[in-house]
Amino acid sequence: MWREIPGGVTAPQGYRAGAVRAGLKPSGALDLTLIYSETPAVAAGAFTTSQMRAACVTYCQEQLRTGQPVRAIVCNAGQANAATGRQGWQDVCTTAAAFAEALGIAAHQVLVASTGVIGCLIPMDKLLGAIPALLAVTTREGGDLAAQGILTTDLVPKTIALESIGLDPPLRVGGMAKGSGMIHPHMATLLAFITCDAPVAAPLWRRLVQEAVTVSFNQITVDGDTSTNDMCLALANGAAGGPPIQPEDPAAATLGAMLTEACIQLAKKVARDGEGATCLIEVRVRGTETDAAARTIARTVSGSLLVKSAVFGRDPNWGRIAAAAGRAGVPFNPEELAIDLGPIPLMRGGQPLPFDREAAKAYLHSDPVVIHIQVGPGPGVGCAWGCDLSYDYVRINAEYTT
Amino acid sequence: MWREIPGGVTAPQGYRAGAVRAGLKPSGALDLTLIYSETPAVAAGAFTTSQMRAACVTYCQEQLRTGQPVRAIVCNAGQANAATGRQGWQDVCTTAAAFAEALGIAAHQVLVASTGVIGCLIPMDKLLGAIPALLAVTTREGGDLAAQGILTTDLVPKTIALESIGLDPPLRVGGMAKGSGMIHPHMATLLAFITCDAPVAAPLWRRLVQEAVTVSFNQITVDGDTSTNDMCLALANGAAGGPPIQPEDPAAATLGAMLTEACIQLAKKVARDGEGATCLIEVRVRGTETDAAARTIARTVSGSLLVKSAVFGRDPNWGRIAAAAGRAGVPFNPEELAIDLGPIPLMRGGQPLPFDREAAKAYLHSDPVVIHIQVGPGPGVGCAWGCDLSYDYVRINAEYTT
Repeated sequence: MWREIPGGVTAPQGYRAGAVRAGLKPSGALDLTLIYSETPAVAAGAFTTSQMRAACVTYCQEQLRTGQPVRAIVCNAGQANAATGRQGWQDVCTTAAAFAEALGIAAHQVLVASTGVIGCLIPMDKLLGAIPALLAVTTREGGDLAAQGILTTDLVPKTIALESIGLDPPLRVGGMAKGSGMIHPHMATLLAFITCDAPVAAPLWRRLVQEAVTVSFNQITVDGDTSTNDMCLALANGAAGGPPIQPEDPAAATLGAMLTEACIQLAKKVARDGEGATCLIEVRVRGTETDAAARTIARTVSGSLLVKSAVFGRDPNWGRIAAAAGRAGVPFNPEELAIDLGPIPLMRGGQPLPFDREAAKAYLHSDPVVIHIQVGPGPGVGCAWGCDLSYDYVRINAEYTT
Repeated sequence: MWREIPGGVTAPQGYRAGAVRAGLKPSGALDLTLIYSETPAVAAGAFTTSQMRAACVTYCQEQLRTGQPVRAIVCNAGQANAATGRQGWQDVCTTAAAFAEALGIAAHQVLVASTGVIGCLIPMDKLLGAIPALLAVTTREGGDLAAQGILTTDLVPKTIALESIGLDPPLRVGGMAKGSGMIHPHMATLLAFITCDAPVAAPLWRRLVQEAVTVSFNQITVDGDTSTNDMCLALANGAAGGPPIQPEDPAAATLGAMLTEACIQLAKKVARDGEGATCLIEVRVRGTETDAAARTIARTVSGSLLVKSAVFGRDPNWGRIAAAAGRAGVPFNPEELAIDLGPIPLMRGGQPLPFDREAAKAYLHSDPVVIHIQVGPGPGVGCAWGCDLSYDYVRINAEYTT
């Protein structure tokens, strides 16, 4: 049990955050962000699988591999620092060292994330020069400010915070994210930062984070284009107090569920804010042998251009949903396929049902639009989220000139 | 060596073809097509991998598995006969039997293909009633007529025919295809029919067809949505004369190259005619360890919405190309990545080059637009084709109402 609370990444105990205008973005918007833990935190992460990884991705992967505690996450917006060679790598190291010195911590306790234009170096003089101002606004109430600092062309900031009910002491999970929208051609990034005040050892934390990311950020798609800079970083600093949570404790299950809920909420906000989107599409699949198979079908349907176009056109097109499910690479018996659009059954036993077309079109004006798919009698369930495909997607992505 | 000749599927010796208006399509366009071989032909095919296969796909797969010769291919347009259950299967069997009786051949010598709306049964009375008229127009000059009969909402018919130079007797390969455009929501099909007059045994023919399909129809993407009805059927009837071609004969290599060329030409025509397309995009990849890896990267880049949008916007956006290559799932060293847009180098050693933006934008008004990608020193090469993503894609796919 938990409840939603305000505060984003500074809702958990012992975190400060803030953001400033360092002048990295031509627009003059907030572009340099800091999350700071007052005590060392165990860290876990998930990263893009692209071969074209930004320097900061490789850097964070190497730092996390050491298993050492983390104190700070720095994020710049404006330059992805991807395809930037040795200088890009040097700039990540310089950023970590400069923040470490300013904060009085070790360089290896600083993680670095970037989002922005591929192939551009960060203007390091501006970044380094903004550190004092950034530290001045990095506070225990800075979660909402920080959530604005990581945006590129997202329409809205995305934050979440949850507090457990029934645990003593209560645990809190906070988070913020920016869009995976590839909203501008080179702004190619899903970033998510999670904070938590639970006392938890690194192995359990890493497992819980991996489980949460698997069913949340890995299940959203806006246009199928994995970025050079995607990352999710999650800290747990134990500031809530109490004894370390053991894997078999009920508190571990509650923590895992809260973490998953927070990540799903952020992932849905990211999908809903996909470029040109007019609604969130939620695809719920059941009846596979495994959850992973259900997730694969859900991802394929939520990512289908034809399904996305049909939802934008408010067309209750079960044929496109069935075709997308069928090509997901998961074996199933087509004669057991059932599809519902929200409350409206469209297909049973692999064949179309008569349905009230006007009611179905009306349902497609809902937000979210929920598509239910059952492929058989198996126990597997999975969910994925996307958004519809509108004229604005093409406009945004075609008319931008590098 | 070969040269292009007119005639499509009736260019090879011993084939007849034709099409009529059976009334299957509301538009009253040509909708029932026959390809007929005057002598038994060895047959090979490639089929959709979707779990939601149309009845005709399963039927053809079963027929080809027997290895028996084929005499006829029937194709209806208007109804996909997918998600149609037992009645759909019965209708395929009835179609094959009726054509067999009319042609004086065995039912198992008739293959059946469908394209059109998913979930709709074929109006069998209209189909069966049109057989006499169809036979009356099925001639040795009917290749172009037949190419029109298989279309749904393609803008142009797609045919090819090649004749060998230097072989005695000369060999001919003919073909026709319809779009994979999912141009209308339920019109979800790539169909390709290949004829050949080479004397060739089934095992060699099947191998050559598989090789040709792998580098042609399997390398095009319009929107990533595999259909319920995709199929390629290829007949070889030996009517050119001469002794059976053995796998080690030089004629086998020539035949394979001609077949591959014919399939690539058809595949490019299909990609160019993708819904809303304003140009063909050709992606050439080299430097992988295997050809298959190069093809995978090429497919990923040609299918990237961001690359497709950039080409439509005439934006020389190397960042999107690099990001798409990086997420293809093929390992490579990003520091060896090189990208050229037609004659214009955009990236070397994983880093952007200065380039003449106006010249690059001008090049993007070419058709085709050719993107060259080198990922390392390996021997692998591969090519894929797609089209740009325009406003019209969204309009066509959103505004259609089922």
